[in-house]
Amino acid sequence: MGEIRKLLVANRGEIAVRIFRTARDLGIKTVAVYSDADKLSLHRLLADESYYLGPPEPAKSYLNAERIVKIAVSAGADAVHPGYGFLSQNPSFARMVIEEGLIWVGPKPETMKLVGDKLGARKFFSSKGIPVVPGAFEAVDFNSALSIAEEIGFPVIVKPAGGGGGIGMFVAHTPEDLEKNLEKARQLAGSAFARTEVYVEKYFPRAKHIEVQILGDKRGRVVHLFERECSVQRRYQKVVEEAPSPSLTQEEREKLLSAAVKAAEACGYENAGTFEFLFDVESRNFYFLEVNSRIQVEHPVTELVTGLDIVKLQLTVAEGGEIPFRQGEVQLRGHAIEARVYAEDPSSGFIPSPGRITYLREPAGPWVRVDSGVYEGFEVPPFYDPLLMKVVSWGQDREEARTRLLRALNELRISGVKHNKYLIVRVLEDARFRDASYTTRLLEDPAFYENLLSEDPAPDAERRIVQAQEGGEKGERTRINAWRVLARIHPG
Amino acid sequence: MGEIRKLLVANRGEIAVRIFRTARDLGIKTVAVYSDADKLSLHRLLADESYYLGPPEPAKSYLNAERIVKIAVSAGADAVHPGYGFLSQNPSFARMVIEEGLIWVGPKPETMKLVGDKLGARKFFSSKGIPVVPGAFEAVDFNSALSIAEEIGFPVIVKPAGGGGGIGMFVAHTPEDLEKNLEKARQLAGSAFARTEVYVEKYFPRAKHIEVQILGDKRGRVVHLFERECSVQRRYQKVVEEAPSPSLTQEEREKLLSAAVKAAEACGYENAGTFEFLFDVESRNFYFLEVNSRIQVEHPVTELVTGLDIVKLQLTVAEGGEIPFRQGEVQLRGHAIEARVYAEDPSSGFIPSPGRITYLREPAGPWVRVDSGVYEGFEVPPFYDPLLMKVVSWGQDREEARTRLLRALNELRISGVKHNKYLIVRVLEDARFRDASYTTRLLEDPAFYENLLSEDPAPDAERRIVQAQEGGEKGERTRINAWRVLARIHPG
Repeated sequence: MGEIRKLLVANRGEIAVRIFRTARDLGIKTVAVYSDADKLSLHRLLADESYYLGPPEPAKSYLNAERIVKIAVSAGADAVHPGYGFLSQNPSFARMVIEEGLIWVGPKPETMKLVGDKLGARKFFSSKGIPVVPGAFEAVDFNSALSIAEEIGFPVIVKPAGGGGGIGMFVAHTPEDLEKNLEKARQLAGSAFARTEVYVEKYFPRAKHIEVQILGDKRGRVVHLFERECSVQRRYQKVVEEAPSPSLTQEEREKLLSAAVKAAEACGYENAGTFEFLFDVESRNFYFLEVNSRIQVEHPVTELVTGLDIVKLQLTVAEGGEIPFRQGEVQLRGHAIEARVYAEDPSSGFIPSPGRITYLREPAGPWVRVDSGVYEGFEVPPFYDPLLMKVVSWGQDREEARTRLLRALNELRISGVKHNKYLIVRVLEDARFRDASYTTRLLEDPAFYENLLSEDPAPDAERRIVQAQEGGEKGERTRINAWRVLARIHPG
Repeated sequence: MGEIRKLLVANRGEIAVRIFRTARDLGIKTVAVYSDADKLSLHRLLADESYYLGPPEPAKSYLNAERIVKIAVSAGADAVHPGYGFLSQNPSFARMVIEEGLIWVGPKPETMKLVGDKLGARKFFSSKGIPVVPGAFEAVDFNSALSIAEEIGFPVIVKPAGGGGGIGMFVAHTPEDLEKNLEKARQLAGSAFARTEVYVEKYFPRAKHIEVQILGDKRGRVVHLFERECSVQRRYQKVVEEAPSPSLTQEEREKLLSAAVKAAEACGYENAGTFEFLFDVESRNFYFLEVNSRIQVEHPVTELVTGLDIVKLQLTVAEGGEIPFRQGEVQLRGHAIEARVYAEDPSSGFIPSPGRITYLREPAGPWVRVDSGVYEGFEVPPFYDPLLMKVVSWGQDREEARTRLLRALNELRISGVKHNKYLIVRVLEDARFRDASYTTRLLEDPAFYENLLSEDPAPDAERRIVQAQEGGEKGERTRINAWRVLARIHPG
């Protein structure tokens, strides 16, 4: 492995921007690829060079593995970083990159393959002594599903063997439920993943999602960078994440971390990866869920509490370098919380809201980090994940991080597209979030969606209000805070 | 002392915004004051309430102590934070605030008075065993100045007794120099500070400016939050600051810190303050210079390496609370560097450049903090300090912080006013900065000003370049990075 001098990022949006930033820190030249929809995207503007991929549809652009590899070679890149999503967990793409003599910034393709097969991974890690969610180790039909469900007890959850992202997942409370949902899951899995196999697992109604950040080098060493809790989810997609988890005792934390390291060692894990666990609040047991064999959306919370740049570490170990610290040197400091700000309408079933951002003011200031992929005037395309930016805060403790994140969201203003900022504010102010008793079902509470705002006013409206109030006697109180009043976040 | 529920900030610009952010974190209501020139200033827009002060001229607005105190009372504020500059070091203002029954977020007025008198402070701290710069303890005429100069040796520096900010300071290498410069200094001091007294001190041609952040509570406890080095100065005003100092051995650091704590204890120091020292590179001795009895512009570098919110601590101790940690619990983590971005033209003697900001893109992302007082479209008034924003980076070590700050400055774009961004970039890339051998005279080097850019292109120009390059065959390299090419920061 040589030194990386020129890096192609096979991605777009905030994660491409974030990777370019570390590359620039390190003096590495950056190569962007872009579709027709991303000609003026921030990730393209921030790169040293950029190459056209194709039409907006992912299959014709960001999923076009052959074209991306060809561009990497002809641009003289010596490494490819896949970001998350798109081709990031595709072992064939990794192999193509490696076969061209380029550095793949990710795990070995065989590891990616092993952990990418959900049933295979369950079997593998279970055989290595890692607790997995009780349930099937093979695809099921109704009879085998029912016999497993009766053995482990209802409710159970039906999952497609070939996919993820919450698609085709259904909870069954009775045998009738199970029969119906098996069929529904099969149909959805078939159309979404071209694979109809499904399986069943025990369903825990009061569960938390806790995951461990893992890093491995090519010399066989594996460390953890502590855990994140990501239990605030809508339709199995995370919205708010934090590090460390506020839900674990020190003993539970150590048990979880060492299980994750053991699992990563068992599969010879290299580079950054996330080992996800379900934590059952009733029994206080945790169970392995799956591995995300790439950088995670929510990696910044780990960066802020450890002080470690995970993208920098990914590049270091991809080059063949060793992890530049011992496990005991990784120290947690304080607490971090991330909010994912999406262009979507939470009041209408989280339907994406593409369009032109007519006004944007990003928050800033003490201990607020914004990883954004957009700018004012940018046209959010309808073709991709509608994540606009991540707003992340750090505090000496969880409460300091929480109030800082609220302050940052109060400063954030987005007009032109609908967004979920006000939903996140409600989450952060919710008693169940504040006392950390929340589970993955928090956002099922309809109270979150009542009279929920989903857009900010444009600045002209703010200014008009300021000016309208100027009439009063000089020195008299000008009874406005334009930003605050319009936001309706802190009434009174 | 009661709890602070509503805070008036007697200031404007980035420091008012920064104080409001912490106040909001703590659930404290915020009150802004503004002049005619600041009707649409960011600090006003971010406050809960805002009150009109008067015409733009400082004497009629931000220096109008009586009016500000009257507003604080009538608005129902229970505390006043003065920021830096303006009335922040004015003991009479502090007394007026206290006499109205409000909390003064700063040291006791008598401490402010003691340390505000430069000659008096020299005498006081010298009598307490703190090393001060060799020189006069009283105002001098030519004869007494010459006899002191002959005793301590030339060169010496002539300083006004009544002022600061580098105004009226002159180095004298010979008795003739001294006679001439005494007269010049007297004249300037008379017109700037209405006090013609001057004094002389030993001048060290190779010196560093190193200062200690002090915090005291009303229970008599004083701690330090380590030191900052601020040796990059133009006309005795700081431009780039960092924490910790890269120039001290551990032994020297401990000696400096304990001298500062001893000095602060000697004067019963309460709240936040900065004890400034001159470090002579030749002898490796340090000498007390002066105390800044308020929050310092460069406080963010200390915040980033300690994790402590200095404004929050100011409010805590002003309320009568105790410092919430022991000295030994203050831990340094990594390194931080701050760049002060001014609306000024470094190529024309740093002349201020007020005007409308026609385009602004602030940097963001991992470990970059921006404390800004402006926004796109804002008209920078000609009446005040032309500081636009502070861009601050954190890294695990100095080199990581340095490269991150360069990356951040590369992302920053300001059009419409001239600014010093490109000068700061040259400083950060300079070998003397990189190896930390720089002294306070670094910016005297004319090489910094050759062919120096002082403005960024507007985004339309960036976009036009992107679009002009679209013509090539699809998939061909688009040989541009709009931001990079136009910035000319990283050629090649």
